[in-house]
Amino acid sequence: MRIAIAVEYDGTNYCGWQIQPNGVTVQQKLEDALYTLTGGRISVTGSGRTDSGVHALCQVAHFDVQSSIPPEKFAPALNAMLPDDIRVISSREVSEDFHARFTAKRKTYRYRFYESDMIHPLLDRYAARVGQLDVSAMDRAAKLFVGEHDFRAFMASGSSVKTTVRTVYISKVERNGGYIDFTISGNGFLYNMVRIMAGALCDIGQNRMTGDELKAALSGSERSLLGKTMPAKGLTLVRVEYEDNAL
Amino acid sequence: MRIAIAVEYDGTNYCGWQIQPNGVTVQQKLEDALYTLTGGRISVTGSGRTDSGVHALCQVAHFDVQSSIPPEKFAPALNAMLPDDIRVISSREVSEDFHARFTAKRKTYRYRFYESDMIHPLLDRYAARVGQLDVSAMDRAAKLFVGEHDFRAFMASGSSVKTTVRTVYISKVERNGGYIDFTISGNGFLYNMVRIMAGALCDIGQNRMTGDELKAALSGSERSLLGKTMPAKGLTLVRVEYEDNAL
Repeated sequence: MRIAIAVEYDGTNYCGWQIQPNGVTVQQKLEDALYTLTGGRISVTGSGRTDSGVHALCQVAHFDVQSSIPPEKFAPALNAMLPDDIRVISSREVSEDFHARFTAKRKTYRYRFYESDMIHPLLDRYAARVGQLDVSAMDRAAKLFVGEHDFRAFMASGSSVKTTVRTVYISKVERNGGYIDFTISGNGFLYNMVRIMAGALCDIGQNRMTGDELKAALSGSERSLLGKTMPAKGLTLVRVEYEDNAL
Repeated sequence: MRIAIAVEYDGTNYCGWQIQPNGVTVQQKLEDALYTLTGGRISVTGSGRTDSGVHALCQVAHFDVQSSIPPEKFAPALNAMLPDDIRVISSREVSEDFHARFTAKRKTYRYRFYESDMIHPLLDRYAARVGQLDVSAMDRAAKLFVGEHDFRAFMASGSSVKTTVRTVYISKVERNGGYIDFTISGNGFLYNMVRIMAGALCDIGQNRMTGDELKAALSGSERSLLGKTMPAKGLTLVRVEYEDNAL
């Protein structure tokens, strides 16, 4: 049977989602837990990679297993084997047609900032520290991402994909307690796309870039025209949605 | 000259504030940084100890130093020597009468809960996980702490102090985003007092204790009548106030 799981993790201590020759990853921890549970080497497929240090409120993954464990019980059973910074929120049986990556319809990410000229230890783990931001200007600029665009300029240089066209459904910047959150939903994201967008919005919020320059980037210019890629720790994968949206 | 500093720290990786024979503490990190900075062994006096794992948004401390460093520059200079999970927010010269512990007039703590039947990695570092809470009942009960009371029942057993009478100025429980925060201000706190109070409020929020039982505890009964001491990670020292309240 095919089991889909929703996974929350604090990415601070992991080299990202995907198994790597060096460094501990979330996927590896899950496969290790499944091995302890079932005695079999079962590979776990995520909705996509998250980079080293990136967090997830709800990553989705699937695996195929033959087991007498009821589908819903995989969550508590895996949690008993996992470190506290990775939790399986829920597990359920899905059809063989379900594929965590290929059938994902929509993903939502949050990039979180806090404004300070010094590190605040109690804010710094899940947010990027920046100077004062013009949040209204950032929100106006964030709206430019909505729609179908060629996001080539917002992809890490050196990446190769079939197409750099993606559709963004929601894109907004707002204050949330002591943080400023950039939230974006789309049908897919290029490598480092959200962190590069966050860097561009930060430049706009600090008057180092104009809305027109951002528009130019959206008409398919090169990566080099945009500013820096923001640090991983501010990024959280918030949600992955499917046709049959029970996760 | 005497310098007062305001210090923020993530207590997760420290054995509390006060220097100990085994284990790294925040006070030790500050004294080590002062040693690197000045070449002298200078002792740092905090407003009080925080226990292992307890956090601070604004702990206050003082030290005496002879140095050509301007008072305001101790903050950035110490930060250059400190790990990222300890930051000196500000530094200034104070009179010889100032004593971080003995002249403190009022302290504020926050105890933070989140409601879940499982660990949430992205909430769990700075909050204690509990079941569903009746926040209104907790807030009503928290109000009982306000005023001058003998808080003997809210002190870790085995502690010895001259008096167990303290005055509480503010005590409330409220929802704050995904968290529930118990905030308390008083002229002083007994050992483990806030964590024992948080445990009692949690019992009230889950119908394991009544307001009348809490009242009985406040008329000076023994520790053993109350429930558990809540975990350190949910506790944060928020503020320390002085007559001359510039920190």
